[in-house]
Formats: sequence, structure tokens, C-alpha cells
Amino acid sequence: MSHYYRLVVSCPDRLGIVSRVSTFIAGYGGSITEASQHSDLESGRFFMRYEILADSIGMSHETLRDAFAPIADEFAMDWALNDTSRRRRVVLMVSRESHCLVDLLYRWTAGELDCDIAAVISNHDDLRALVEWHGIAYHHVPVAPDDKAPAFAEVQQLVDEARADCVVLARYMQILPPSLCERYAGRVINIHHSFLPSFAGAKPYHQAYQRGVKLIGATCHYVTEELDAGPIIEQDIHRVSHCHTPNDLVRFGRDVEKAVLARGLRWHLEDRVLVHGNKTVVFA
Amino acid sequence: MSHYYRLVVSCPDRLGIVSRVSTFIAGYGGSITEASQHSDLESGRFFMRYEILADSIGMSHETLRDAFAPIADEFAMDWALNDTSRRRRVVLMVSRESHCLVDLLYRWTAGELDCDIAAVISNHDDLRALVEWHGIAYHHVPVAPDDKAPAFAEVQQLVDEARADCVVLARYMQILPPSLCERYAGRVINIHHSFLPSFAGAKPYHQAYQRGVKLIGATCHYVTEELDAGPIIEQDIHRVSHCHTPNDLVRFGRDVEKAVLARGLRWHLEDRVLVHGNKTVVFA
Amino acid sequence: MSHYYRLVVSCPDRLGIVSRVSTFIAGYGGSITEASQHSDLESGRFFMRYEILADSIGMSHETLRDAFAPIADEFAMDWALNDTSRRRRVVLMVSRESHCLVDLLYRWTAGELDCDIAAVISNHDDLRALVEWHGIAYHHVPVAPDDKAPAFAEVQQLVDEARADCVVLARYMQILPPSLCERYAGRVINIHHSFLPSFAGAKPYHQAYQRGVKLIGATCHYVTEELDAGPIIEQDIHRVSHCHTPNDLVRFGRDVEKAVLARGLRWHLEDRVLVHGNKTVVFA
Amino acid sequence: MSHYYRLVVSCPDRLGIVSRVSTFIAGYGGSITEASQHSDLESGRFFMRYEILADSIGMSHETLRDAFAPIADEFAMDWALNDTSRRRRVVLMVSRESHCLVDLLYRWTAGELDCDIAAVISNHDDLRALVEWHGIAYHHVPVAPDDKAPAFAEVQQLVDEARADCVVLARYMQILPPSLCERYAGRVINIHHSFLPSFAGAKPYHQAYQRGVKLIGATCHYVTEELDAGPIIEQDIHRVSHCHTPNDLVRFGRDVEKAVLARGLRWHLEDRVLVHGNKTVVFA
Repeated sequence: MSHYYRLVVSCPDRLGIVSRVSTFIAGYGGSITEASQHSDLESGRFFMRYEILADSIGMSHETLRDAFAPIADEFAMDWALNDTSRRRRVVLMVSRESHCLVDLLYRWTAGELDCDIAAVISNHDDLRALVEWHGIAYHHVPVAPDDKAPAFAEVQQLVDEARADCVVLARYMQILPPSLCERYAGRVINIHHSFLPSFAGAKPYHQAYQRGVKLIGATCHYVTEELDAGPIIEQDIHRVSHCHTPNDLVRFGRDVEKAVLARGLRWHLEDRVLVHGNKTVVFA
Repeated sequence: MSHYYRLVVSCPDRLGIVSRVSTFIAGYGGSITEASQHSDLESGRFFMRYEILADSIGMSHETLRDAFAPIADEFAMDWALNDTSRRRRVVLMVSRESHCLVDLLYRWTAGELDCDIAAVISNHDDLRALVEWHGIAYHHVPVAPDDKAPAFAEVQQLVDEARADCVVLARYMQILPPSLCERYAGRVINIHHSFLPSFAGAKPYHQAYQRGVKLIGATCHYVTEELDAGPIIEQDIHRVSHCHTPNDLVRFGRDVEKAVLARGLRWHLEDRVLVHGNKTVVFA
Repeated sequence: MSHYYRLVVSCPDRLGIVSRVSTFIAGYGGSITEASQHSDLESGRFFMRYEILADSIGMSHETLRDAFAPIADEFAMDWALNDTSRRRRVVLMVSRESHCLVDLLYRWTAGELDCDIAAVISNHDDLRALVEWHGIAYHHVPVAPDDKAPAFAEVQQLVDEARADCVVLARYMQILPPSLCERYAGRVINIHHSFLPSFAGAKPYHQAYQRGVKLIGATCHYVTEELDAGPIIEQDIHRVSHCHTPNDLVRFGRDVEKAVLARGLRWHLEDRVLVHGNKTVVFA
Repeated sequence: MSHYYRLVVSCPDRLGIVSRVSTFIAGYGGSITEASQHSDLESGRFFMRYEILADSIGMSHETLRDAFAPIADEFAMDWALNDTSRRRRVVLMVSRESHCLVDLLYRWTAGELDCDIAAVISNHDDLRALVEWHGIAYHHVPVAPDDKAPAFAEVQQLVDEARADCVVLARYMQILPPSLCERYAGRVINIHHSFLPSFAGAKPYHQAYQRGVKLIGATCHYVTEELDAGPIIEQDIHRVSHCHTPNDLVRFGRDVEKAVLARGLRWHLEDRVLVHGNKTVVFA
């Protein structure tokens, strides 16, 4: 797999940003293999993502980053310059349902997800054999209904020890405490099993069944303190009809959930998702 | 176009319904060209729809209906036996936006909607020329913001004079008063420009834009007294991204709205939609 | 899981079939939980599928079958009366690509596929560990390019020993010889990685890339002697653009393939697929 | 509506293109509201499209074009710099079926298609009243089956007199002669009523019905001398089942055709479609 530098920028829109950045890269002989820009006309904010072939540039990641810093300052950029040779570290959190986990592990094995899976954390022990068969550490951290703090302290310690860049709630079924939401802000991805903002909260498929909707959905979003209200990364739906029982909705939902989560995570790992207030720019 | 009798039944599920009904029809030589059944296991209610070639039965619509009545009584059926040679009469209600109207008029002209369009009622005069070009009566009934009652009295009179079987709110943008909702219960079809239950009420595309959803939708439903909460007939969605402005959402939405409304109305006219509490059985 | 008898019928359409069959079932107290019919107006053929709660009928599967036989004769039916308490036996055939296999094994584990997986046969040894971890026998049958007959003789023996009701080519990448196509006619399901009839044969994603299509697809079909030309059970597509390389098409294709194959196989196992010449009736 | 310059470029990929172009535009104070790039790694060709707010640049369209020419030469660009204040002139060609025409006229009226419709040409007179009601010239040019040359000579004269930038075959149902394909190369858009390359040629829905496909489609493409083989702009599909007759397929197909054609035409008019051999880059 080729080795890239990925430049991701968000800043106030003004004249000459692309000129300045592209001229900087061309000046070092950098070959841009993929370029995306977006001007948000409402907020006046500019977003860009450049994928640069590392070998085309005769300097290290750190040197390039230092060289770019003055431009970033000049344009008041929120920015990152990532090196794809340093793989992201991901921690997966699951409960008992395995569909998202099985799907992510397959994609990871097949090379669709460019990351290391540092560990799997679960409040149950059910999925240990599956995870360990893939050579991944499995941590069982039961969550006591009446005092969840010790469990989440342990979760925090495990995530920190794993040096996780990203935490994926792959149907974890527990609500993260505000302290963790804040600590890992912008780095925790959840899959919610409804087409948000419809049916937030518990048992969304049963809510959908009772309302008689003709489409069910799933939503991949960044976790924030407000439940199921964080920036949406991706959504998709599945058609249902009067023929389908709540169990059928759950079954269809599994397919939508795993597809939506996999797309969202892949885009996150490829630096394609830029958060903009409570929304996202996704250079998919 | 062939001539059919359509038998539509909803009743408590029990042994022998299909046997009794199909034997009754076979006894008169009736050729069934389409048959649909559904047993709702949760509520224990049974639904069926039979399309019978009228020419295959040697008796009139009225005679057949009388002959069937004892079976209907025996099984406590809600039922109808409709004769497709009697075309339904539809009143369309619109405001200023023409996309649903243009679409329905095209489909009606092309023979996709088996009905007479008895009249178009609007609170504005903008679409008169278009409607009259199709040879359809156009009634301009302005709605005074501070006293809507006279307008809705006139609407009621027009609908009654038109002997309408069905009223379609094709982006009418006014809320029908409870009296009309009740008077025409089960016969008023609305298109709401969101994927209900998300974004009920006003300006749904702007709500969707603010929330940053990745899919927008439209919902065709029967009108009940509670706003945007009636039984859903059909829904569909369109994918959007950060590139799209609220105007783009409105534009995509027009396509979804007209498609969803057209399907919903067609199914209603073909007796394919059976209301079941606040949900629908749709034999599409 | 409840226990059902499934009656599947295909016969010349004529008066009184439903009456006769439903009266027969009602006569034994049979509770029909799902009923589907289809009259093909072009060919004059009738299709039906009834799902009957076994416990509601006071007789064994064999007795019921014997009792029904005279009706089947009278109406010249192709028919089957299946008992869901006897699980189908499925043999999966794979090559090196694991996406369909992983997906089917997950669904089987999750109870989405009502069958026993009797064995997996592969022309490579790559997927042995995965299969055996699920407790399923794995047979490595290499296929010599210059003399494939011995391999297919072994395949036939393994399928026969496994008493397979159904053989699934889950990306097997070898063409079955006519003798096996004939021997297992109507029981071999293949997933082809294109939207047939486009791009039959080898390397369909590369063909699609060269043609510049904007959608790629996959097709689940019964295998017949003519390559990629058997009755289609299910198809689906994925949107692509100029951004996507042949590798991206392959990646998207994996998702479509596994979804389409899983739906096709599930419907086959639930007796929802009735072959009609080179087409299918699918009571999904 | 704002006024833009649209720069569209295709050239061999090499270092510094974006830098050179964006610096050129920034040098004149040009505000880029939308920017798209694509590097085709297989062919080594680079594509870009910039939308520049005209008012932000203190010079006329012609002056800007002259100033850019040396850069274009330096990089061996195929290029265009279009001024959106000069509306494109479109000629629609139709036969008897009105669905695409009605749809395009609605979208044109609603402001979704930024063009003048210079004329409608048809080999039948059926749609005259509809077209003239929209205030558009209608030319009836019958095509004699045994000698089509005079008709196409007249078509050519009408298209030339209309100074058409673009000709849309909105279900014209006649094959353009090679001379016209060549004369208007890259400017004639056709809607084919199948998911190409499946079912090229006549009666595609009947071909699809006979093959028993589960999805039907439509394809919008540029017309070339080889029938139904030109660069594909857009495609979409509609799900069908055994329930559907050839007439149903035709009906569903109308919806897909008009949607696909409208998207393709809109993108063409907005300079979003760049031809690349027999494929397209679509910056949608």
C-alpha cells in the first residue's frame, strides 16, 4: 500500500487559501493524488483535504509539518497533517450482539480498514472467543447497574493504555458518562439503530414498528454528551412493510447498522470526516 | 382496461375465512386475478384484497354485494366490494408549489391514476392556467390568516359538491380543521416533506439542514386531527451531503415528494391501502 | 421457533384452486400464517405458497401429504409440502475470497438461515481455519486446470454423502460441469458479481470499469448449464463514480454480493422461490 | 441568481497544475465557490472544475479567457471558461411519449435547468399543444421509414438555426444518422430505457421482462455513432418482481428515465460532465 501524507484543514474562508497550500506542496514536488474542498457559504468556513504521495516529497513528516505551520497560522487553520504509515489505533466496544463486530473484523482482515485494532472491551464475556480467534485482546468490564463509575474508570484506563486514536461503540448498549465523552471528544463513533433524529433512545425498532414507518434506518455519529445528538457521519435505510414483525426490523436493521458503521469508520480513519459545529463535512 | 370487482376485507383472524370467501367467489365462476392476504399476529386481525374479473361473474355489482353480505356478517368484517367501472372522484388541494400537481396531472393523463379529477382547490390563484389547460375546474379559496373558518366552509361545500371520494393535499400548506379531518376521515391524503416522525411541522428541510442529516425524505399519510401523525402509506428518501444548501434539499425533496405521493394515491385508488389503527397494510 | 408446514404449488391456472386448497386446510383446522398467490397472465400459470402452523393441524406431515395428493393430481400441480422441523442441509463451495462465507456463517450463527451447513468444499485450503472454528467440516478439493473431472467427481461424492438439499457457490470461481448442473438442477445457487445480463463471464468489475457504468451490481441465480444464464432470484446494485478504481468496485461489489446471496439463499430455504421457465416467482 | 465563470480543464497530470491555476485566479481576486479535481491514476489524466464568482473578478469574461490561455497552452489543456450569464440553448427532440418532456419542462419552469429551450422537434405532432402552451416553438419533422435523409437534413437545419449548444433526445425513438452524431459530438444527450450495457437496442423493457431481471434501469449518455454505446453520464434503477407485467416495467421505467435524464442534463448544463475517452468524469 502506498504511503501518503493527508492534510486536513478547516478555516475561515478567504482569498488565496488553495493557491497558498497547493503552491507550498508543489514547491516540495508533492504529488496530490486526491483533493477535496468545500466552502460553506452559510458559515463562511472553508474545508479541504489533500492526499499527497509521501515518496514524491523529499522530506519527513515532521519536517513537512513544521514547514506548513506558518501557513496554518496565517490562515487561522484547524489542521492536521497525518502520515498513513502510522496506523491508527482503534478500540471496539461491544455488548452481546455480534453483527457489527463480525463485520468490522472481516473488513479489518480484508484490508478495508486501515488501522490496528488495539483491543475489544465488552460489558459481557460472550464474544471473547471470536475476538481472541482474531488475535485481539478482549477485556470484560461488567457494568453494575447501580454504580457504573468503577466500570467506566476501568474503560478509561484500558482505552488510555491502548493509546487509542478512536473508540467505536459497535452496539455497546451503554451510555458513556460525560467525562469520557469529553475526554475522547471527536474520537468516539457510535452506531444508533434508527434514522435519527427519529426514535432516539431505547428500542428504536420497536418505536418504528409502533409508528408504522415504511423505512427503518441507522445512524453513525460522533458521541457527544447529549444522547444520540452528536454530528452525523452517515445514515442509511431499509424498506419495511406491514409484513414485517419487530424481529424482522431488528434483522434488517443489523444489515443497515453494520454497513453504516463500517462506512463511517472507514471515512474517519481516512481523515474524510471534518466536524463543523454539530454537523460534518464528509469528503467520501 | 378490464373491469374488476375489488373485495377488501379486514376482520378478526379465525379459521376458514379464505376458504369461505374463495369458495363463494368460485361458486359464481369468479376469476381472481390478484389475491393478497395478511395476518397480523400481534393484533390477531386479518386483511385481504381480491381482484376479480367482473366479466367472469354472471351478476351485477349490487347483486354480488348483497350475496356477500351474510359472509361479511358471519366473520364481523369491515369490508368493501368496489366496482372499477365506477371511477373514483378526487379533489386536489394545492397552494403555490406546482411539482406535485404537475406530476399528478401527468400521471392522470397517462392513465396511471384510475380516477376522475373533479376539481382543484387552492388558497392562491397561481396554478389556475395549468389546471384549466387540463380541462379541470379550479377554485380559488383564499384563507384569511385571522379567520380561516369561512374558507374551510367553502372548501367543504366544494368537496361535497364534487362528490369527492378522496381529497389529496398536494402541498396545500394549510392545516385542515378538525371538522374536515373527521368528516373525510380515511379519505384525505397528505404529503409531508420529511421522513416522519422526524421534522414534523413547518420548514422540515430547514430543520433537516440544521441537524445535518445525510438523508432527507417525504411521507404520504392519511390526515388525522393530530398534525403529521396519521397512518403512513408510503415514504422514501434522497441522499444529501454537506455540499447541499437548504435550496438543494428543497429541490431534491420535490422529487421525493411527488414520487411518494403518486405511489400513495395510486395504491389508495386501487384499494391497496387498509388502515389498521394508526398504521396501514399496503398490498402494493 | 414455531413449526410449520409449507405448501408450495405451481399449476395451470383455473377456477377454484384457492377454494379447494384453503377448504382442504381449513377442514383439518389448519391455521394459515402466511399466504401468497400469483397468477401469471401471460403463461396462464398459477403459483401459491401457504405457511401453515403445524400444531394447528392434528396430523403428521406424511399423513397430510397423502391427504393432499388427490387435489394435487386433480389440478396437475407441481407441488411440495415441506416440514420446517426437518432442516435443510446446505453445502457451501468457496474459493479464496471469504466475504460471502463470513457473511453466511454469521447469519447462520445468528439464526437468520434455517438450515444445517453440512460441509464446506473449496479448491483451496485458505479458509479451513475459519470454517472449522465454526465446527463445520472443510474439504479441500483442488481442481487441476488440465483435468477437472476427478475433482468434480469428488465434489459430487461429497455433496451426495452430505445429503445436501442445496449447494451454494459462494464465490467458488469454478464452472460446474454440465453433469453436476443437471444432477442438482434447481438446487445450486450462485452469486455472480455483476448485474446480469451485463458482464457475464470473467472479471465483471473490470468490464464494468472499462465501460464506465455508474452502478455495479450482483446477481443471485440458480445454476444451469448455460453460464450465468439461469433463473435470477435476486439482484442489487451499488453506486460508483469516476473516483473509484477497479479495486473500489471489487470492494463495493463484495458488499452487494454477500447481501444478495444471503437474501437469495434465505428465500430459497424458506420455499419462497418458485422457478417458472427461466424466471422465478419470489414470494419475499 | 449569482453570475459565475466556470473553468473546466482536462490535461495530462503533472506537478503544479492546481498551484498555477489557483494562484492565477487568486491573483485577480477571484472567489472560488466550488472546486473539484480528479486524477485518473490509470490514464494519468487530470480533470478540474472551478466555479468562480464573476463579481469577485475585476475583468470581463473575454479578458479572463485571454489571460488564462497561456497557462492552458503550457499544460496542454482541453479547457473551457464559461460565463453563466450566457444561457445555453437546448433543443429537445421527442416522439409521442411525453413523460421526459413534461418533466424537463416542469424543471425548466421551476428554475432547475439553467438554459433556454430554443425549440422542440418531433417526428409526430402529438405534443404540440403542450409545448406551445409553454411558449416554445414546436417543429414537426416526420421521418419517412424508407428515406430518412430529408428529415434529418431538416433537423440539422433547425438545430443550427436554433444555435443549439445541446440536443436532448428525450425519448425521440429514432436513431440519429452518423453525420449528425459527428456534427454535434459531445452535445447530444440520450436517455436509453435500460441499464446499459444490458438490453441495448429496441424494446428493452420487454427484453428485461423475458430475462426475468429483478431491477430495471435507465441510462443517460452522450450519443456516438455506435448505438447505445456512448459515454454514460448517469444511471439508475427501479426494483421489479414477478408481479409486474411488461406494462408495469414501462410505467416504472418512465419514472427512472425522466429522473436520470434530468440529472444528466442538469450536470451537463452546469459543466459538471467531462468526457474521458468513452467514460465520463461527473463532478456532481
